[in-house]
Amino acid sequence: MSNRFTLSLDAMGGDHAPRMVIEGLEIAAQRFPDIDFLLFGDEKKLRPLLEKYARAKSRTQVFHTDEAVQNEDKAAAALRGGRNTSMRLAINAVADGRAAGVISAGNTGALMAMAKFVLKTLPGIDRPAIATYFPTRRGESVMLDLGANVDCDANNLVQFAVMGEVFARNVLNLKQPSIGLLNVGVEGYKGNEAVRQASAILQESRLPIKFHGFVEGDDIGAGTVDVVVTDGFTGNIALKTTEGTAKMVGYFLKESLKSTFISRIGALLARPALNDLRSRMDPRRYNGAMFVGLNGICVKSHGSTDEEGFANAIGVAANLVNGKFNERIKEDLEHLISSESSKEAAAS
Amino acid sequence: MSNRFTLSLDAMGGDHAPRMVIEGLEIAAQRFPDIDFLLFGDEKKLRPLLEKYARAKSRTQVFHTDEAVQNEDKAAAALRGGRNTSMRLAINAVADGRAAGVISAGNTGALMAMAKFVLKTLPGIDRPAIATYFPTRRGESVMLDLGANVDCDANNLVQFAVMGEVFARNVLNLKQPSIGLLNVGVEGYKGNEAVRQASAILQESRLPIKFHGFVEGDDIGAGTVDVVVTDGFTGNIALKTTEGTAKMVGYFLKESLKSTFISRIGALLARPALNDLRSRMDPRRYNGAMFVGLNGICVKSHGSTDEEGFANAIGVAANLVNGKFNERIKEDLEHLISSESSKEAAAS
Repeated sequence: MSNRFTLSLDAMGGDHAPRMVIEGLEIAAQRFPDIDFLLFGDEKKLRPLLEKYARAKSRTQVFHTDEAVQNEDKAAAALRGGRNTSMRLAINAVADGRAAGVISAGNTGALMAMAKFVLKTLPGIDRPAIATYFPTRRGESVMLDLGANVDCDANNLVQFAVMGEVFARNVLNLKQPSIGLLNVGVEGYKGNEAVRQASAILQESRLPIKFHGFVEGDDIGAGTVDVVVTDGFTGNIALKTTEGTAKMVGYFLKESLKSTFISRIGALLARPALNDLRSRMDPRRYNGAMFVGLNGICVKSHGSTDEEGFANAIGVAANLVNGKFNERIKEDLEHLISSESSKEAAAS
Repeated sequence: MSNRFTLSLDAMGGDHAPRMVIEGLEIAAQRFPDIDFLLFGDEKKLRPLLEKYARAKSRTQVFHTDEAVQNEDKAAAALRGGRNTSMRLAINAVADGRAAGVISAGNTGALMAMAKFVLKTLPGIDRPAIATYFPTRRGESVMLDLGANVDCDANNLVQFAVMGEVFARNVLNLKQPSIGLLNVGVEGYKGNEAVRQASAILQESRLPIKFHGFVEGDDIGAGTVDVVVTDGFTGNIALKTTEGTAKMVGYFLKESLKSTFISRIGALLARPALNDLRSRMDPRRYNGAMFVGLNGICVKSHGSTDEEGFANAIGVAANLVNGKFNERIKEDLEHLISSESSKEAAAS
């Protein structure tokens, strides 16, 4: 049984905002009867939309602001000048305890900068990361960082490994998730300085995590490890590459199936199976990336998603709140850090 | 009409060498009646294999060596101590004019180090890169670097853009290929220092190339640009990620089609279309990555490929020789470099 709680929404972030935010809110309101919503944005646009959805309206408080972060805004500028933006006000609601988590489909850099500034990072974490889970041949795996930190050193990667481990344990319900460092080969001497050092630290550490070693790009889809750790530059590109490739294969499949009369009949008979495949791969299903390492739940929705995708991002936040994710990650981190420091103490 | 020429093969490189090299040679010998082969490796293993293939045998000269580069050898060590390895001797044959190009499925780092040392880089190129073409929704595109240089600065990326342009023009027969820099977003301020600087250089340069700007991971499969330029770390991971994702989708498709009796019938009717899809995505079809920027044709085959894939890698080298690729890339580079220097002269 879940308790009643409140989520805070940036109504103005995303390509199709605020329409898809309100429509996503309506879908989420049906799925989660115990959640109330705080909605930040332009009242003149939000009120008429809410009028269409009685359920969403009855569970939502609207807070007006004229200002919104734009997609082209730089993070630092948004942080400095965006104190009254819908994004910032939505994050503030988490910091002051009015909401248990925040969801935005807006500018990723600005959201991370503001969330980091307002919510602060957890003890032991220098830089928060963006994490998500995705389908693999073996089931589901987690990958991080997906774009919060384009340049990472070995220590950042080690911290991502720890956060990813806790994320996988809590969100995918795995007992002891395996961790892999994304690299251009599995041999120890391969890759850049950061991944080689991070691998050495993870191998020598007493951290109670299952470090598999290096993995390569094709291990992502194979599901070789439960957690794929990488810097934000590579992770962002790898994740978007999987999306683009899946779309391409789907397109080729459609083309091939249309090529002859017989294959069209075949496709017709196989339609439920093909729909099943499409839904299994539907990127909206995996919409909603978690900012891990912060003192609060902050979920980033894909900017171009529709209401279904946005509702799923709300669902990710709801599950994280219900599962007391942030309390658990905090405890786990403290435990991991103390096991590391006791090792250092023993070594000195 | 092609003239008769000779290719040099490292018989000992690759997971299934030397068997798949000889069998691939036999397939290639059928496809290319005007090519002769020099085969470097352990005679005791090669002779009995060649005995099975009269055609391959009649067109092949075997050169014995006991030594071979191992997969776990570091590039520097292989370069220093590997003067009598099959890989090194095969490359030497290109340098001294006995062969028009070399193909190896062995250790990538060692092959690049040796090829660079023996063949030298082209004027104006600091570091050679690994390039290949791959299927996209729009047709085929080129990507580089795929792993030769894990750390790249802006100038390296600019040189890759130039080499990729020439490669796409000559290998994909495009009049004016478009070039994109792989990044985590399309906005100018996104990404790391190297890609931002490279983008500025390409935008301001007078190079007669069509620079599209930044592209993201999903643009790879979409075929948004003809040439995707990136550092060797990201490029290697992106390419392998597409392979892994395509495999995963294929696996899901198979599973879905088996799920009900009706869908099995559908799959049976659609089988030729599905086979068509499989062959279109077959990684063996795209096996054979070119080392661009060297004074000579050097093609790297995937280490785990089979004879069909190795024959395709031989085919890549054959097409590059037939198309006088290296002469054309040299001319194009000189032209590009002189157009750049005239700009610099004008600016100073």
